[in-house]
Amino acid sequence: MVYLTRKEHFNAAHKLYNPAWDRQKNEEVFGKCANENWHGHNFELYVTVKGNPDPETGFIFDVKKLSKIIQEHIIEKLDHKNLNLDVDFMQGKMCSTENLAIGIWNELLPHLPPGVTLHSIKLYETPRIYVEYYGD
Amino acid sequence: MVYLTRKEHFNAAHKLYNPAWDRQKNEEVFGKCANENWHGHNFELYVTVKGNPDPETGFIFDVKKLSKIIQEHIIEKLDHKNLNLDVDFMQGKMCSTENLAIGIWNELLPHLPPGVTLHSIKLYETPRIYVEYYGD
Amino acid sequence: MVYLTRKEHFNAAHKLYNPAWDRQKNEEVFGKCANENWHGHNFELYVTVKGNPDPETGFIFDVKKLSKIIQEHIIEKLDHKNLNLDVDFMQGKMCSTENLAIGIWNELLPHLPPGVTLHSIKLYETPRIYVEYYGD
Amino acid sequence: MVYLTRKEHFNAAHKLYNPAWDRQKNEEVFGKCANENWHGHNFELYVTVKGNPDPETGFIFDVKKLSKIIQEHIIEKLDHKNLNLDVDFMQGKMCSTENLAIGIWNELLPHLPPGVTLHSIKLYETPRIYVEYYGD
Amino acid sequence: MVYLTRKEHFNAAHKLYNPAWDRQKNEEVFGKCANENWHGHNFELYVTVKGNPDPETGFIFDVKKLSKIIQEHIIEKLDHKNLNLDVDFMQGKMCSTENLAIGIWNELLPHLPPGVTLHSIKLYETPRIYVEYYGD
Amino acid sequence: MVYLTRKEHFNAAHKLYNPAWDRQKNEEVFGKCANENWHGHNFELYVTVKGNPDPETGFIFDVKKLSKIIQEHIIEKLDHKNLNLDVDFMQGKMCSTENLAIGIWNELLPHLPPGVTLHSIKLYETPRIYVEYYGD
Repeated sequence: MVYLTRKEHFNAAHKLYNPAWDRQKNEEVFGKCANENWHGHNFELYVTVKGNPDPETGFIFDVKKLSKIIQEHIIEKLDHKNLNLDVDFMQGKMCSTENLAIGIWNELLPHLPPGVTLHSIKLYETPRIYVEYYGD
Repeated sequence: MVYLTRKEHFNAAHKLYNPAWDRQKNEEVFGKCANENWHGHNFELYVTVKGNPDPETGFIFDVKKLSKIIQEHIIEKLDHKNLNLDVDFMQGKMCSTENLAIGIWNELLPHLPPGVTLHSIKLYETPRIYVEYYGD
Repeated sequence: MVYLTRKEHFNAAHKLYNPAWDRQKNEEVFGKCANENWHGHNFELYVTVKGNPDPETGFIFDVKKLSKIIQEHIIEKLDHKNLNLDVDFMQGKMCSTENLAIGIWNELLPHLPPGVTLHSIKLYETPRIYVEYYGD
Repeated sequence: MVYLTRKEHFNAAHKLYNPAWDRQKNEEVFGKCANENWHGHNFELYVTVKGNPDPETGFIFDVKKLSKIIQEHIIEKLDHKNLNLDVDFMQGKMCSTENLAIGIWNELLPHLPPGVTLHSIKLYETPRIYVEYYGD
Repeated sequence: MVYLTRKEHFNAAHKLYNPAWDRQKNEEVFGKCANENWHGHNFELYVTVKGNPDPETGFIFDVKKLSKIIQEHIIEKLDHKNLNLDVDFMQGKMCSTENLAIGIWNELLPHLPPGVTLHSIKLYETPRIYVEYYGD
Repeated sequence: MVYLTRKEHFNAAHKLYNPAWDRQKNEEVFGKCANENWHGHNFELYVTVKGNPDPETGFIFDVKKLSKIIQEHIIEKLDHKNLNLDVDFMQGKMCSTENLAIGIWNELLPHLPPGVTLHSIKLYETPRIYVEYYGD
């Protein structure tokens, strides 16, 4: 079993704001992240798949195809977008990095071909904060 | 003459949108960056000052004081903010990285003590795009 | 289950020196690291906690609170310190990066709130050397 | 149990080319990577070993000795080499990063001293692509 | 005057080999870099242009257009190529990083639109070696 | 004219402490950096030389020779050392990064061969603080 990781990148705006709370409580809980006018990040996304290398190619999966799938199904939906307003799979959820990583996992999973197993989503919100999700 | 650089960090939302143009022209010129719902970045800011080391301290300027000045006068205004809506010194200007770097220079300059010369502002918008400004 | 990591930084001096051995044996075993006048590093510390996101916040734990706990209980004790002389939890131990990572784990664990599970300590001594500890 | 990682570096040329296929099929499958005149990379190699710290040294293994073993048995064979033509342990295999990581594991394993357990090989082909192998 | 930099990336094979010398002299002068079977690198290319921001866009030049020009005229010729064999503008020259940077400058210059001034080419051969060229 | 940069690395201990002052004044001026028991850093050193490429080699200077000169005359004196106590060329000077960069310049200059011009010393004390010196 070998693990293969591809790093992709997207820029997006978001805010941490629970609509069930008033502004004061949002500011108490989320501080500057609750700014109603939004803030944003350069997100770094690491997608890891696993499998056994194919003897004919040496690949567990062609990394260029992996990149293309991530671009089409994830980056296209997130890059230069507002995570709270523009992204279908984040509707009705808090826009934390944790939830975004889970959302990316669920969105990407059905687009991987048979025989390629998704292992993890690692998502940097800033160079000093990241989350990882392994699907359960 | 020695050059001393301090790196700081802020996260912000912005869009590239010229209000004198209609939406179609904005999208033609700025593409995804014109998204009316904003996007954002982790900006990396490098402030360089220059001078001769003080024999008693070995410093051209105490880098902790430099960091404090940048925090108070720049980061406080930009971090977790919307550059188009929330930042006084960007009002009426296009929110490009070029203009943001010039704005940071002008905003920081009067807060440096006598004998400390501002040399440059270097501002990363993404890990692959940055601008530099030397004051003229 | 989601994993959340916060990166912190500290600078410290140390030496690798076993007081039960004479200087010659220390130099044979530890080489330059045994320099009696100390050397030092910029340590990069990655603290990973795990849990399930809270539906109201989207957080497994507020990363700003995590950062504050690490600052108060770990960085305060290590930053700009001599690991052999100044750090209570390293007394009587060899000041290797391995032992420092274990020490940080033990020191941090009781300060995390209920429901937040410490997953790992990753500690870079140099950009090319790091250790990881998972608590057992 | 503590995990210790050492990062090493080598530069090499390779191509992805299956000699059982004609040139057209190689280009269809491998694209630019099939260029018959080769291309190359700065590979970053992370070797992780695990064990319990020795009370007398604080080490699970002396990282300088680990580096020396990697240099002698891996880097010496790969650095400034053509992976397809010059490397004995890659003969008859596709020169993918997956197979190279497995090859490095097998080559390194017998050279580690008793009591030091090899945990993983992590190999960056580019800053955006890496593979990991854990030995089974 | 503001300076704008775009970072691009390419992978290539090369060797340092002066055909006017015999193999022994090439090995004496270039060491491992003279391996007749080639080696390779992940090159990181920084292109810096300078100018005054356009009041209507805030740009000195649209960085997406800059990236497209570099892709079309430089990366297309160098990525996954053999610098000695495949690159027209390196024919008859030693394939050093110095000469490659000069070659990229000369190749890129005529493709920049009027009003955009090329300032520098910075080219990393490895993470620890780079050259810069300013056009004279 | 082409500029060639080589990056080297050393780890060292130091403190910022003016012996002409009492401990209280040292702590007021230097804060944690005045800790009498020392602290330390992973210093990253960038040495830039300039010249015209030799037509026979393509080099302005063989970067392996440059690295060897830096190793022998600079790294050997600084790595795993105490900058205040162990380094001859820092005696009687404040151990700031500014003064260390100037000292490295002066120490390195006479060891470069004729025809190779030293352009700059860039020295990172931490990933967020660096100084540059150009020789006057």
